[in-house]
Amino acid sequence: MKLNIAVELVYSFNEATQILACIETSRSTDQEILAEELRVAPSSKLFRDKDFAGDRRFRSEVNGQVTISYTATVENKLRQLLPVQGRQMPWTELPEHTLPFLLPSRFCPSDIFQRFAQREFANAGDGVAKVMAVLRWISENVDYVHGVSTPETTAERTFVDRAGVCRDFTHLGITLCRALSIPARAVSAYALGLEPPDFHAIFEVYLDGAWWLVDPTRLAPIEGIVRIGSGRDATDIAFLTTAKPCQMIRQTVQISAA
Amino acid sequence: MKLNIAVELVYSFNEATQILACIETSRSTDQEILAEELRVAPSSKLFRDKDFAGDRRFRSEVNGQVTISYTATVENKLRQLLPVQGRQMPWTELPEHTLPFLLPSRFCPSDIFQRFAQREFANAGDGVAKVMAVLRWISENVDYVHGVSTPETTAERTFVDRAGVCRDFTHLGITLCRALSIPARAVSAYALGLEPPDFHAIFEVYLDGAWWLVDPTRLAPIEGIVRIGSGRDATDIAFLTTAKPCQMIRQTVQISAA
Amino acid sequence: MKLNIAVELVYSFNEATQILACIETSRSTDQEILAEELRVAPSSKLFRDKDFAGDRRFRSEVNGQVTISYTATVENKLRQLLPVQGRQMPWTELPEHTLPFLLPSRFCPSDIFQRFAQREFANAGDGVAKVMAVLRWISENVDYVHGVSTPETTAERTFVDRAGVCRDFTHLGITLCRALSIPARAVSAYALGLEPPDFHAIFEVYLDGAWWLVDPTRLAPIEGIVRIGSGRDATDIAFLTTAKPCQMIRQTVQISAA
Amino acid sequence: MKLNIAVELVYSFNEATQILACIETSRSTDQEILAEELRVAPSSKLFRDKDFAGDRRFRSEVNGQVTISYTATVENKLRQLLPVQGRQMPWTELPEHTLPFLLPSRFCPSDIFQRFAQREFANAGDGVAKVMAVLRWISENVDYVHGVSTPETTAERTFVDRAGVCRDFTHLGITLCRALSIPARAVSAYALGLEPPDFHAIFEVYLDGAWWLVDPTRLAPIEGIVRIGSGRDATDIAFLTTAKPCQMIRQTVQISAA
Repeated sequence: MKLNIAVELVYSFNEATQILACIETSRSTDQEILAEELRVAPSSKLFRDKDFAGDRRFRSEVNGQVTISYTATVENKLRQLLPVQGRQMPWTELPEHTLPFLLPSRFCPSDIFQRFAQREFANAGDGVAKVMAVLRWISENVDYVHGVSTPETTAERTFVDRAGVCRDFTHLGITLCRALSIPARAVSAYALGLEPPDFHAIFEVYLDGAWWLVDPTRLAPIEGIVRIGSGRDATDIAFLTTAKPCQMIRQTVQISAA
Repeated sequence: MKLNIAVELVYSFNEATQILACIETSRSTDQEILAEELRVAPSSKLFRDKDFAGDRRFRSEVNGQVTISYTATVENKLRQLLPVQGRQMPWTELPEHTLPFLLPSRFCPSDIFQRFAQREFANAGDGVAKVMAVLRWISENVDYVHGVSTPETTAERTFVDRAGVCRDFTHLGITLCRALSIPARAVSAYALGLEPPDFHAIFEVYLDGAWWLVDPTRLAPIEGIVRIGSGRDATDIAFLTTAKPCQMIRQTVQISAA
Repeated sequence: MKLNIAVELVYSFNEATQILACIETSRSTDQEILAEELRVAPSSKLFRDKDFAGDRRFRSEVNGQVTISYTATVENKLRQLLPVQGRQMPWTELPEHTLPFLLPSRFCPSDIFQRFAQREFANAGDGVAKVMAVLRWISENVDYVHGVSTPETTAERTFVDRAGVCRDFTHLGITLCRALSIPARAVSAYALGLEPPDFHAIFEVYLDGAWWLVDPTRLAPIEGIVRIGSGRDATDIAFLTTAKPCQMIRQTVQISAA
Repeated sequence: MKLNIAVELVYSFNEATQILACIETSRSTDQEILAEELRVAPSSKLFRDKDFAGDRRFRSEVNGQVTISYTATVENKLRQLLPVQGRQMPWTELPEHTLPFLLPSRFCPSDIFQRFAQREFANAGDGVAKVMAVLRWISENVDYVHGVSTPETTAERTFVDRAGVCRDFTHLGITLCRALSIPARAVSAYALGLEPPDFHAIFEVYLDGAWWLVDPTRLAPIEGIVRIGSGRDATDIAFLTTAKPCQMIRQTVQISAA
């Protein structure tokens, strides 16, 4: 599936401010970038680098009103769906780079969910079956509602609220998987079909030697999702992090079938 | 300075449990390991690996009552003290691997401290001077008291409590440094002179191209500190993480001048 | 049922400290006090008063090591069990004094549980049936375990932990009832059969024009419970509140059938 | 000073919903109500009562789009300013009805501020002098800024944020006073000069046998403040509490010199 992406972020900075932006799409075998363009206006020196998972991001110092725009055409090839089978690996078999994703993090306090996770999912089968049970539980128990959560809402709170948006669904899914000793990481994405269009948050679980993408909101078709970056939780995958407070002027995200 | 370290952790597990242990001392140019021995009884297969910063840890699967013991003789060579000068690097100049240590984490919510950090430290000078001002502020405003905090206490709460132990001092120090855009990471250590002897938590700041070790509690002399590992906060540097609940039976940490 | 109660609280105060103590048993038609004695040593002037619900408490100023002892023999007459029927009253029909117990409080944040309470209990019937459903849910989903919670644990956290002690069961029960618009208040008590013996926390719901006592832990027989006082949550019913920090030296609570 | 007040609350309810409203002005010797009118449209049966402090509120059951309007002309007579002298009363001398206002509450966790309060205010003098020191500290350390806090923000968080609105200033002021053993309660009010006009939150301290009104924001002149009701914190003084979620359509608050 071929997809066109167009993002425009317009922010106002009161003073020279260091920023970190994660808006460029991932390069991977199942996600080919056919064309892309990144612009910052007024022009500003960009320092490009990659996060620990190899995804692209850039840093810059900006001031005044700044427009960051990014357009891309991406071809989604054979998207790997969560397989029918796929066993959970014990800690001792997991590759080193997956270990941070077993541990609790700010928005995903998996340690306090151990008892609930055992009670609810101990008999849900292994690996993929367990993850499917987690996704089903979320779908049956949490409502997709705007206005209940804030950017500071943790999975603990969403578990009580029983409502939230993609970010909250993702945090709760990650939390429950980690509580079950399945490595899970947050993924930022562009996704077809969100209403209103916005950045999407989903997550990946590590089963049988590979990361598998899942969308706990069930809002976007897997072939309509374009991966941006990954990390422990929303903190790591923010599309824009700034060293000082700033003001959002306008922000548009568009994605369409090419 | 030559130091002898002896740790014994005795824990009881109700079922086969995956564990991750970070108790072996770091190898570095200023910290030479002259001798060491790690034993797990009953004998259990150990999977050795390194964390992202190159420090050693091991994983294993254990069951029943388990004793993990580690002894080492370490020579602390020319310990690098925080230099008199040492400028803060802007985000755009920082090496990639330091970026995660600019971001808020579970116990170090630096984002909510930005206003306080600016109010208190904006005029404290650059780099080393700023870090010294943070350490002075902590020393003057926070009491070292057992029993006020728990393993779940965040820097937000310690800032209100105005009391805590090494872990809390470290979280608050890291939080304030990150709020000032100085990368800061938690470090676990063995330290001479703690009463009662225990694992120690300190932190490192990244200034002028290097990580510098600081002890916000001022409890241990820098040459009496032996580094174990590092990470975002206490979650990453726990000496023992277990996939399932377990019971501590006994735990002793000893360090003495050799 | 006739019950003997003996409490001894030994605390150490570093300086003259104002205290508020709620340890005397309630007087009510179904709880007759046959004999009682309250002593504070060294002798100290006691200021007796009553809380808003008419239960007794006293204030004093103490210093040094202080022993507060209270003994009583109480006859539990026809204890009123939660009736088979008993309708929930709409806000507009509730007496004024019950309204504070509809609102969220520190340990009972009922406002964030509205969605869960509706999802889980909307079809559980009215009044008594709803309260019974709440008690059943707690009994089936929360384990009675020491060491999981602290005196700061809220119902939000217990809902995630799925474990706690009487105080936590009570806070969760109150929270769910208030979320369903049923007034609920915390009650402190002496109770037969607790192991180890300690102050007990239970709660009362307001249905059909009266407060009804329920024990969400199901640990003590209703006729073995002796009421002390009531309030919004644990803050209001603490057996001892002090204006300054102090140290507990020893504390014993005994209750036995007379 | 004579003041005209006009409030209009327009809310939409999806189903028959019980409400509790506190918008009528207090009657007191220094606040005379010259004229007032309360209307609910569509017309609905109102159940009038008083809170524990004698202030008026009403309950009703409403459905669909509802407009609650209240107009009043109030004469502010000799407003009692915080006196130059006024000693703090020890717990043992305080009247019963003030005791709940010594205890921590949801938004005012005064127990965790004891150490800070002692460190900062122990030498600030007695009674009025201490309260003045608290007000000065808040004024010097907290910025009045919209958008930092939410209706769930506690004094703990405001103490870290160092920013907030009237509700947050009031919670922090109450918290610090209670931590110093001075009874303090939240007060809702209409106030001249707020921009934009809105309900105002201030607080009262109990010194020398009387409640004294203070405004920690210093935004409104004391003679331009019209008291509505009081309670432990924002929970108790909400102008509208509803048993079920509803939607705010429009809300206007106007106050002007008559």
